[in-house]
Amino acid sequence: MRDELFARGSVPMTKEEVRAVSLSKLELERSAVLWDVGAGTGSVSVEAACLLKNLGGGHVYAIEREEEGIRLIQENCDRFVPGWEGFHLVKGQAPQVLEELPAPSHVFIGGSGGRLMEILGAALAKNPQARIVVNSVTVETTALCLEAVSHFSFTWYEAVQVAVTRLNKVGRYHMQQSQNPVWVITLQKELPES
Amino acid sequence: MRDELFARGSVPMTKEEVRAVSLSKLELERSAVLWDVGAGTGSVSVEAACLLKNLGGGHVYAIEREEEGIRLIQENCDRFVPGWEGFHLVKGQAPQVLEELPAPSHVFIGGSGGRLMEILGAALAKNPQARIVVNSVTVETTALCLEAVSHFSFTWYEAVQVAVTRLNKVGRYHMQQSQNPVWVITLQKELPES
Amino acid sequence: MRDELFARGSVPMTKEEVRAVSLSKLELERSAVLWDVGAGTGSVSVEAACLLKNLGGGHVYAIEREEEGIRLIQENCDRFVPGWEGFHLVKGQAPQVLEELPAPSHVFIGGSGGRLMEILGAALAKNPQARIVVNSVTVETTALCLEAVSHFSFTWYEAVQVAVTRLNKVGRYHMQQSQNPVWVITLQKELPES
Amino acid sequence: MRDELFARGSVPMTKEEVRAVSLSKLELERSAVLWDVGAGTGSVSVEAACLLKNLGGGHVYAIEREEEGIRLIQENCDRFVPGWEGFHLVKGQAPQVLEELPAPSHVFIGGSGGRLMEILGAALAKNPQARIVVNSVTVETTALCLEAVSHFSFTWYEAVQVAVTRLNKVGRYHMQQSQNPVWVITLQKELPES
Repeated sequence: MRDELFARGSVPMTKEEVRAVSLSKLELERSAVLWDVGAGTGSVSVEAACLLKNLGGGHVYAIEREEEGIRLIQENCDRFVPGWEGFHLVKGQAPQVLEELPAPSHVFIGGSGGRLMEILGAALAKNPQARIVVNSVTVETTALCLEAVSHFSFTWYEAVQVAVTRLNKVGRYHMQQSQNPVWVITLQKELPES
Repeated sequence: MRDELFARGSVPMTKEEVRAVSLSKLELERSAVLWDVGAGTGSVSVEAACLLKNLGGGHVYAIEREEEGIRLIQENCDRFVPGWEGFHLVKGQAPQVLEELPAPSHVFIGGSGGRLMEILGAALAKNPQARIVVNSVTVETTALCLEAVSHFSFTWYEAVQVAVTRLNKVGRYHMQQSQNPVWVITLQKELPES
Repeated sequence: MRDELFARGSVPMTKEEVRAVSLSKLELERSAVLWDVGAGTGSVSVEAACLLKNLGGGHVYAIEREEEGIRLIQENCDRFVPGWEGFHLVKGQAPQVLEELPAPSHVFIGGSGGRLMEILGAALAKNPQARIVVNSVTVETTALCLEAVSHFSFTWYEAVQVAVTRLNKVGRYHMQQSQNPVWVITLQKELPES
Repeated sequence: MRDELFARGSVPMTKEEVRAVSLSKLELERSAVLWDVGAGTGSVSVEAACLLKNLGGGHVYAIEREEEGIRLIQENCDRFVPGWEGFHLVKGQAPQVLEELPAPSHVFIGGSGGRLMEILGAALAKNPQARIVVNSVTVETTALCLEAVSHFSFTWYEAVQVAVTRLNKVGRYHMQQSQNPVWVITLQKELPES
């Protein structure tokens, strides 16, 4: 979904190409229960909700601590999936607020507020088979995800950096303009039996 | 969908992150008629077919001239969307073979065999509102897409380069290994009335 | 040389990493006569002048059409190579102003004002063995350089894109921030006899 | 200096663009004493030696533990700076072998064999003003360099990732082919008085 369709305010938003890759890595299915931790504008929550609505099921929990984020998520939800009963807006701070939520099958962590390990622990405590995708824009968070692999004994993980360069027309020319690269890290502790 | 799930042979395949971005740019809907020109292993066709099957409609025309590609596409179709009546495997050379196909609402061009302008022309002749996504790995094809914008009077277009770097574990370390960057170019001549 | 050492004003400047690569591709020697076409702030001219001064010879012609550029180049020249007789500041428009200059052994083209082919022609008319390095930030200029290869029968050429991502400290974290990628294209028509 | 000019064998070599940036970050001067730790093929040592020879002074210590590296470094030294008395080939393992060397003004660490912190400590023990440049191709080494900043109280540091994409001609087209990105990290504990 195109970035310009979302209400954004001044909140940082996962860019559409990184969002597409992140959602692809999540591998959502009809029965999914997705936690979107640090939901920001809700762009990931809302695009996931559109997918799940098409699949005919699922739940999205958009978790956000900031007032402006809450307002934007509600607005974007109303714009794209009005009245869809699978959408749940949760105001509060992770990891504390996660305690009261139902166990996730999928977790997206766009922003961890420096509490990544606790958030991973809270998700795995609810469901050790949860499929987790983290977006990282810092060396420290990427390194921490790799430490988490051994700390939590994830059996499957993957890390890809997505660097997007956009062509912008300036006069007769198309200039290359870079977006900041984002690491998309996928973690899974136990693979579901198939 | 993960690359390793597909039958691949020795045919070049759109990598999963680039495929996710390209499919996102296509914006497929339930009523979509997708041409996948130069379908290769059929990975784009098959992932599009999965999306459309979930949406409850649509048609995919996987167009490929090479024998090995045809075999792989059939195998991947049987693996992921067995029996889905929306999947059509078309052996032949673009743009000639496109004549006999129904008008596309969406076109993906992964490989043009040096005939990009004719393929664009053939698609637009059938439907001037077709939404077209091209993958380019060369400077010449990217430049040609930009020339096509004025030649065909596309009213909306976008070009993004997606560069993916993957972490590979070597001993105790994670090395950064790059995939070749791919330009994802989206073209639309007439926007449908909304 | 570090970017922050230069007087810059509001003129775009070749970033230090791209400047280092570009100067490396030029392969300046003691007897070099360098044209820096579209010299901007003069950062390439001045760093080349420092190299040549250390080598004990050479000439740099910094060619710039804008008043502000001329002022900045003079300031940077005075700062780094004061009194060095090899530095020549040339106000005027390429390719016309190139007519009156001595034949170059090396040419750097940071900005061509849409006149790239004429500038290449002017340089080669003076010296068909000139080693030429072009910086391009647009698809069109990169494609034009590749066309120039056959148009001028360059026997040796190379094109590399340099994409620099910088770590910026934000709180306890280091964020990845991208600079726009630059193509560094090296062209040589006739290799000097060795 | 072009990569193809060096004797290489099967030893990994710093690519020419990354070498140009790394040497630029080192800021060698006439009086420099450079340690090249994990010298590999000696490409950095030899290009530094060429620079210093032109400046009329300086010393390069190429430190390497592998037999094949030692042989290649000697061959490259003989090829580019034959008879230059500033070149010193040191066979041995860092950090132990560093003990016996003269204090460095500049240090390049292309490979640390997992002993980065000890190597930094050994260099700073000899000269706390040494300017140090590290090349890293792993997340762990990059993160370790950032930890070193606080551990050793470096007052100035910088980290840039250099990602090079090369155009390769295939038929009538130029394909974009990526090299793996390299982090170039510059560290300085005490700036010399000026």
